[in-house]
Amino acid sequence: MNSFGVVFRVSVFGESHGNSIGVVIDGCPPGIPIAPDDFMTDLSRRQSGSRGTTKRREADTPEILSGVYNGNTTGAPVTIATRNSDRISSDYDDFKSVPRPGHADYVSGIKFSGFADMRGSGHFSGRITWGLVAAGVIAKLIVRPAVINAKLISAGGSTDIEQAIEKAMAEGDSIGGIVECTIANPPKALGEPFFYSVESSISHIVFSIPAIKGIEFGAGFSAASMKGSAHNDPFIDGTGKTLTNNSGGINGGISNGNEIIFRAAVKPTSSTGSVQRTFDFSRGEMTELGVRGRHDTCIALRMPVIIEAAAAIALADLLMIDRGINASRKL
Amino acid sequence: MNSFGVVFRVSVFGESHGNSIGVVIDGCPPGIPIAPDDFMTDLSRRQSGSRGTTKRREADTPEILSGVYNGNTTGAPVTIATRNSDRISSDYDDFKSVPRPGHADYVSGIKFSGFADMRGSGHFSGRITWGLVAAGVIAKLIVRPAVINAKLISAGGSTDIEQAIEKAMAEGDSIGGIVECTIANPPKALGEPFFYSVESSISHIVFSIPAIKGIEFGAGFSAASMKGSAHNDPFIDGTGKTLTNNSGGINGGISNGNEIIFRAAVKPTSSTGSVQRTFDFSRGEMTELGVRGRHDTCIALRMPVIIEAAAAIALADLLMIDRGINASRKL
Amino acid sequence: MNSFGVVFRVSVFGESHGNSIGVVIDGCPPGIPIAPDDFMTDLSRRQSGSRGTTKRREADTPEILSGVYNGNTTGAPVTIATRNSDRISSDYDDFKSVPRPGHADYVSGIKFSGFADMRGSGHFSGRITWGLVAAGVIAKLIVRPAVINAKLISAGGSTDIEQAIEKAMAEGDSIGGIVECTIANPPKALGEPFFYSVESSISHIVFSIPAIKGIEFGAGFSAASMKGSAHNDPFIDGTGKTLTNNSGGINGGISNGNEIIFRAAVKPTSSTGSVQRTFDFSRGEMTELGVRGRHDTCIALRMPVIIEAAAAIALADLLMIDRGINASRKL
Amino acid sequence: MNSFGVVFRVSVFGESHGNSIGVVIDGCPPGIPIAPDDFMTDLSRRQSGSRGTTKRREADTPEILSGVYNGNTTGAPVTIATRNSDRISSDYDDFKSVPRPGHADYVSGIKFSGFADMRGSGHFSGRITWGLVAAGVIAKLIVRPAVINAKLISAGGSTDIEQAIEKAMAEGDSIGGIVECTIANPPKALGEPFFYSVESSISHIVFSIPAIKGIEFGAGFSAASMKGSAHNDPFIDGTGKTLTNNSGGINGGISNGNEIIFRAAVKPTSSTGSVQRTFDFSRGEMTELGVRGRHDTCIALRMPVIIEAAAAIALADLLMIDRGINASRKL
Repeated sequence: MNSFGVVFRVSVFGESHGNSIGVVIDGCPPGIPIAPDDFMTDLSRRQSGSRGTTKRREADTPEILSGVYNGNTTGAPVTIATRNSDRISSDYDDFKSVPRPGHADYVSGIKFSGFADMRGSGHFSGRITWGLVAAGVIAKLIVRPAVINAKLISAGGSTDIEQAIEKAMAEGDSIGGIVECTIANPPKALGEPFFYSVESSISHIVFSIPAIKGIEFGAGFSAASMKGSAHNDPFIDGTGKTLTNNSGGINGGISNGNEIIFRAAVKPTSSTGSVQRTFDFSRGEMTELGVRGRHDTCIALRMPVIIEAAAAIALADLLMIDRGINASRKL
Repeated sequence: MNSFGVVFRVSVFGESHGNSIGVVIDGCPPGIPIAPDDFMTDLSRRQSGSRGTTKRREADTPEILSGVYNGNTTGAPVTIATRNSDRISSDYDDFKSVPRPGHADYVSGIKFSGFADMRGSGHFSGRITWGLVAAGVIAKLIVRPAVINAKLISAGGSTDIEQAIEKAMAEGDSIGGIVECTIANPPKALGEPFFYSVESSISHIVFSIPAIKGIEFGAGFSAASMKGSAHNDPFIDGTGKTLTNNSGGINGGISNGNEIIFRAAVKPTSSTGSVQRTFDFSRGEMTELGVRGRHDTCIALRMPVIIEAAAAIALADLLMIDRGINASRKL
Repeated sequence: MNSFGVVFRVSVFGESHGNSIGVVIDGCPPGIPIAPDDFMTDLSRRQSGSRGTTKRREADTPEILSGVYNGNTTGAPVTIATRNSDRISSDYDDFKSVPRPGHADYVSGIKFSGFADMRGSGHFSGRITWGLVAAGVIAKLIVRPAVINAKLISAGGSTDIEQAIEKAMAEGDSIGGIVECTIANPPKALGEPFFYSVESSISHIVFSIPAIKGIEFGAGFSAASMKGSAHNDPFIDGTGKTLTNNSGGINGGISNGNEIIFRAAVKPTSSTGSVQRTFDFSRGEMTELGVRGRHDTCIALRMPVIIEAAAAIALADLLMIDRGINASRKL
Repeated sequence: MNSFGVVFRVSVFGESHGNSIGVVIDGCPPGIPIAPDDFMTDLSRRQSGSRGTTKRREADTPEILSGVYNGNTTGAPVTIATRNSDRISSDYDDFKSVPRPGHADYVSGIKFSGFADMRGSGHFSGRITWGLVAAGVIAKLIVRPAVINAKLISAGGSTDIEQAIEKAMAEGDSIGGIVECTIANPPKALGEPFFYSVESSISHIVFSIPAIKGIEFGAGFSAASMKGSAHNDPFIDGTGKTLTNNSGGINGGISNGNEIIFRAAVKPTSSTGSVQRTFDFSRGEMTELGVRGRHDTCIALRMPVIIEAAAAIALADLLMIDRGINASRKL
């Protein structure tokens, strides 16, 4: 199930310490101008480097393996990949019998009957989001003139993000955060009843991103505390603009043309500098585990561009489905 | 896109005031004992009737149209439907030009180019969840011995739910709520990387339910304020049991065998007794709108059984996918 | 896997002697004018009645359960069903231990672990094609101005069809036939590389129809005996018209605008009046089996309208996929 | 739509003269032992080299980009690719305005609005089947102990294949052929009613292969000329063995355990040495076209291994679907 989408289909592949990581984009319209350099802005935003992110460095230079000719997409599947280079696998040897708390070590061992490549969390690594971001670059071009922007709005429970990170680093601990994503100028009438609401599609792909544990649209969880008279967004003009936007631009699962807005909760990085107690499955007793190696203090710092990509891919797919079914509609 | 699932596929159909509503369940294993009466407990829980729910009454008697013979599922698609009876359509006549705030009136008008059946919100009605609940009854049998329970844990921001509803009714307003769902004794190793995590699958179907605006797993949004050392769930025995359950039973998108737990935010019913200002699209001016007719003060009251059904369906599908791929795994 | 299609999705349900048979059509565009009477022409063509067809009589009156309002499709799933009435199930009691040669008795017993409803072949009955034909009526409207026509071009190896049937009836035997289907004025550029060629899509659905054992497009099997210089179809004008049509209107899996033409081989009805030797699985010895009951001498007589429906559904789906991906193309 | 399969999903990418061609295999069970060398036998069978095949030579060395670790599949998607090397693109420059008869030049120009990479037929090239063959190597391991064998049984209408090819080469023409594929010892009970019969699944993928124009199962087209009493295959023992195998091992779309057998018709290579008349779309007049460059006299020579791969992939997918739904069945 490494692919997402009904018409615009994105398939990711690769492992943290394997040969390559990449993405195949199927159902990609022809005639989209794209060159390897066009991926660099978003791929760089995803990279580590700032304080609070891992010291692992990857060149991450994308190579287009198929689907682009003379500077345009051709209509054939677009494949983009990059080689993994900065691999230090010795860090990860002991986690089969002593799985790290919060990591996928334990479940991947069971899921794949001991055959999972567990180096750097293998296919469960956040590194797999590289392909998502690459596909997002193309998806963003498809959904134009919609403009997608995500940003980290809190970390460790605080809006003073820089300070929260410094504090966590000083404590050798990790922290989570909340990312807010807005889609300005979205197409109207996207989303398909019953099972492909805008919320369904976006949440499906956003929850594919490692470390995401919650999502809410518009007023979201606070809507549960509101009264209907306050939550309802009155229409105020003939374009369908609403006075408030508690619905996050989505009524009945369908985009109403107002800004789509959602927030995603990012849990703290599971790897921390602290020593943790956990179970040693081979010895059958509790043990202490210190996770060395390189890791992010706040993985949420790198999330905004990944979440933008996820939203763009979901939207591109919804756009193509709607276009396929409702050919004659004028917006 | 009125179907959900890769192997266990559920398709819903019907409109609030149309002939029938129902569901087709495909990929349903043979040999599941089921009779029309077995649906009644859950269908009754979904029905209105208690204070705070609509006065519309439907017999809701399920008829099994296909797929069951001699008291067992046969392996062929199971179709369950019921006739709509208590229809008063005159309540809904004016909403094409004056769409109700918070409702799907405006978007369904655009989406379906004016052809949507808008009586009682048509296919966008919460009534469509009847089919989801019916399918959930079968899905719950498939995922045994897992046990799924959902309950309303707050309404209108208060844990004193009864009082909150009385107050809202007195004010002629509506309120939202939060539903918590737990899956005890879930199968281990469900969830498929990258795009079919347990969270992806459950959130996809839960956000298909009208009025849901947020979902979180385990510690959820509060995880964003936690430190890794506190959020990580240490394993404490050889069965994979964890000391805490901040992950909600899911690591890396895969179930780890601990209780799966999630919460969904339900917005307040859009229909309220209050008069609301909104736009009259035919006259091109603001107007006042009072929504008469029958509606729920707190739609969240009827949500637990619907959310249980959604979770059961998602889990049944994940179970079959996993079983198809990983035939030889011993748990 | 009782559904077909990526965007235009058709799901069939029902058993030969069950409560109902029917079809759910999802991804159906709104605004298609349709009434129950519009189904009768094609449903009547599918019915038995002429010499050489079974004496089972069903009223087959379609009831529209959802998705149509005020005489038009609404954009919500269209469900069409009919009750089974003329059921004589006692004819089918012995086939569990002595499965009829050529029938699905043996495989359905294994497939569904003994739970299959085997009355009248249950879900494996040709009766399930009722839903396909009903969906085809709508699909034909969607693919207009393409016009789809199928006819029986031979039976029992002879083009004198009437005489071949009389002879088979006299012998108490059954015969097969070949159906040819043409799609005049098809949309250009349908078909998606690599895995959704026009041939792939049409053959997939045509081979779902019970009794089909072969399909060929254009020159088909005779192409294997041809030279390239003779098989190639030269273009002769600016519309893409070709001098010959050995390709059956499809190059590289994509429709080229010329008539799409294919032929399907229909095997003889498995039920015959003759006594047949076969194995008794309960006694573990060979036995003789005479199939009484009502059956078609030449099921191929009823196939043309079913094959038209299959082709229309495949084409409608390809049309919507293409439209979704290639929005800006002018044909 | 460059992917095939419900649970075992194969996605191909690449163009004839692009950077790379390859395949992503998703839903691949963990623990399958595989190394790059294991692909060489089948990839070599697919290669040109014998008389009657093109002089284009590709090293075709497979590189495993993901999904294999320590010599076994890991459960993550397996990606296999190879670089294109022997590219002479100048041969293909003129076909935009003078599309070659029988080729995809004309339709790909329309389909992709002029953006298709037409060098060597781009994504429509038979070269894309490289990925299919690579995936087939793994699929064959999954469906063991079933054994799949295909061979060319006639060329240019003759069973003396060598002589037919020599003759065609002498004439500077091309010829078609018929490939027969048998699957010995297949799993019983594969195939899903209604829309995923064994015939549907196999034909779907086989018709994705360029140049295939017909397929028939068991007696196939000759069944149309048979009587039921002769076509029916009597069971002769308790294992379900049948005396004859006119059904090709498939009843009601479900495998009955007997050998699955089908034949595919391969049209003659469109490129021939002969000069052909066709239309010049830029000048609006008929013209003469001689296709130089390297091409196969009889592409059917290279088909058997491709068709084996297609059958293996279809079967692997059917196996996993069946296993997912019918977990408890004992065969």
